[in-house]
Amino acid sequence: MAAQSCDSVPEQGGEPGVALRARLADFTKTFDRHLDEFLRPGSDVPPQLADAMRYSVLAPGKRLRPYLVTRCCELVGGRAEDAWHGGAAIECVHAFSLIHDDLPAMDNDDLRRGQPTCHKRFGEALAILAGDALLALAFELLTKHTPDAGVAAGLVLELAQATGWTGMIGGQTADVLGETQPPELARVAYIHARKTGCLLTAACRLGGRLGGAAEATLAALGAYGRDLGRAFQIADDILDITSTPAALGKTVGKDAAAGKQTYPRCVGVEASQAAARSAAREAIAHLGAFGPEAADLRALADYAVDRSY
Amino acid sequence: MAAQSCDSVPEQGGEPGVALRARLADFTKTFDRHLDEFLRPGSDVPPQLADAMRYSVLAPGKRLRPYLVTRCCELVGGRAEDAWHGGAAIECVHAFSLIHDDLPAMDNDDLRRGQPTCHKRFGEALAILAGDALLALAFELLTKHTPDAGVAAGLVLELAQATGWTGMIGGQTADVLGETQPPELARVAYIHARKTGCLLTAACRLGGRLGGAAEATLAALGAYGRDLGRAFQIADDILDITSTPAALGKTVGKDAAAGKQTYPRCVGVEASQAAARSAAREAIAHLGAFGPEAADLRALADYAVDRSY
Repeated sequence: MAAQSCDSVPEQGGEPGVALRARLADFTKTFDRHLDEFLRPGSDVPPQLADAMRYSVLAPGKRLRPYLVTRCCELVGGRAEDAWHGGAAIECVHAFSLIHDDLPAMDNDDLRRGQPTCHKRFGEALAILAGDALLALAFELLTKHTPDAGVAAGLVLELAQATGWTGMIGGQTADVLGETQPPELARVAYIHARKTGCLLTAACRLGGRLGGAAEATLAALGAYGRDLGRAFQIADDILDITSTPAALGKTVGKDAAAGKQTYPRCVGVEASQAAARSAAREAIAHLGAFGPEAADLRALADYAVDRSY
Repeated sequence: MAAQSCDSVPEQGGEPGVALRARLADFTKTFDRHLDEFLRPGSDVPPQLADAMRYSVLAPGKRLRPYLVTRCCELVGGRAEDAWHGGAAIECVHAFSLIHDDLPAMDNDDLRRGQPTCHKRFGEALAILAGDALLALAFELLTKHTPDAGVAAGLVLELAQATGWTGMIGGQTADVLGETQPPELARVAYIHARKTGCLLTAACRLGGRLGGAAEATLAALGAYGRDLGRAFQIADDILDITSTPAALGKTVGKDAAAGKQTYPRCVGVEASQAAARSAAREAIAHLGAFGPEAADLRALADYAVDRSY
């Protein structure tokens, strides 16, 4: 299938983010067809399990991580079609984390991506199992659809570390435990880096690996992903205060109510906005080796901070 | 480290299972030292998360799956030290499944391996996260410690499929959903094959792969694991009726109370015992290509049926 995602470079000028949003929407349309294919269950899968998995993964989303996988693959000379399964794998991990984070024992959320959370729709047992199965499926996709075994093994190691006790799940643990502790910037930074940064870093590096990038390029792409994650997460903390459920597609004001460690709680909204901007600038700086072909990734860093949802 | 597990062939004669139990105990002592090493957290892992993971994985257990990985590796000419990480990976998956199965939303169990279940000890949120992190760690271990990338990728694909929607998690889903359905032998067989069979099959095949076995040998080892799993699971169903919490290290009589799909509920205890014996015989038949070096695996199939705990 043609790589629709790299057909155009976003326009400069005009309302910031408009061209990027159109491009993301285009990408999502194409990517979601592939995602749907990867999520087709065989006849030996209990239909209720497949339904719960598909409900959560295929719910409308920004597909930020798959976009990064695909674009970083293309940026280093690969083709979008070499990266679809990598994007699907990381979207499965992302959906798994949302399902489990939303559980009553964790953040206890009723609304996600504009629809009832997985456990609200399917019950807690199926939600736990759907999350588990999505995590396993991510590693199945990476090894089944990557032709080169050396590349496949590298992808698995990278994604497993970004997901596990040193990565996203470590961050979610600190987040849950942090609810009973006074807000502290170092703790917030740790949580952000693990909960969001690790998976965005992995998305960029996985894309680079799938495109055959050298180690130095992987490092630059990973650093971009890490700082982009910082920008997104600080902006998310701010949006939890300033946005509406209709715009966000999820509950707002929950962070403060739950006593969450957030940037605004530590330094206020204004300083948080400055920190988000600074993170976006640093993300963009890591793309110095690339020319106009990386314009959309630079715009994405600005969009992380400027978006209203 | 020397391969203590293959230093001796179990004695014939004497009380059946005595030599095998001694051998399993020897293996466990050696293997658990390696397992402990693989479960040492870095400084960037939240200590509470590592504690919950270690509590569940390192709790005294039969280490049946790691034993199969190691012995199948040795049986095809590999060394035990090539297989420790494979055994650790599959034990992580097993512990993950126990933690999540025990959750209040699932089987709601208070006792496991003779100690309070993970969520009873650490709370539900940490138990969910510890399970998640153990699943991710399994794939990290396989790719980090397998020298040959082609072998590593094969191990990951096999374990991911045995674990995910087509495997163990699919089986657990059918098990949970089956509680509201009338007992039916086809459903019980499906649940057993997925919940237990898939991971035992994978243990044998992973061991074979780590020892460099050809495809035909992998198929025989896998078939042995599958039928061994059947024997163990039918016997477990029987023990849930006939044993005590002190002997089992977990709650008994729960299956019937929860309306679980079990063998005895479908055909009674006597026919279940016959079915378990038949499964053990079929498991042993798959080892026809091996000589006395597979005596312990044959004894293991008998032990699956004859054990009283």
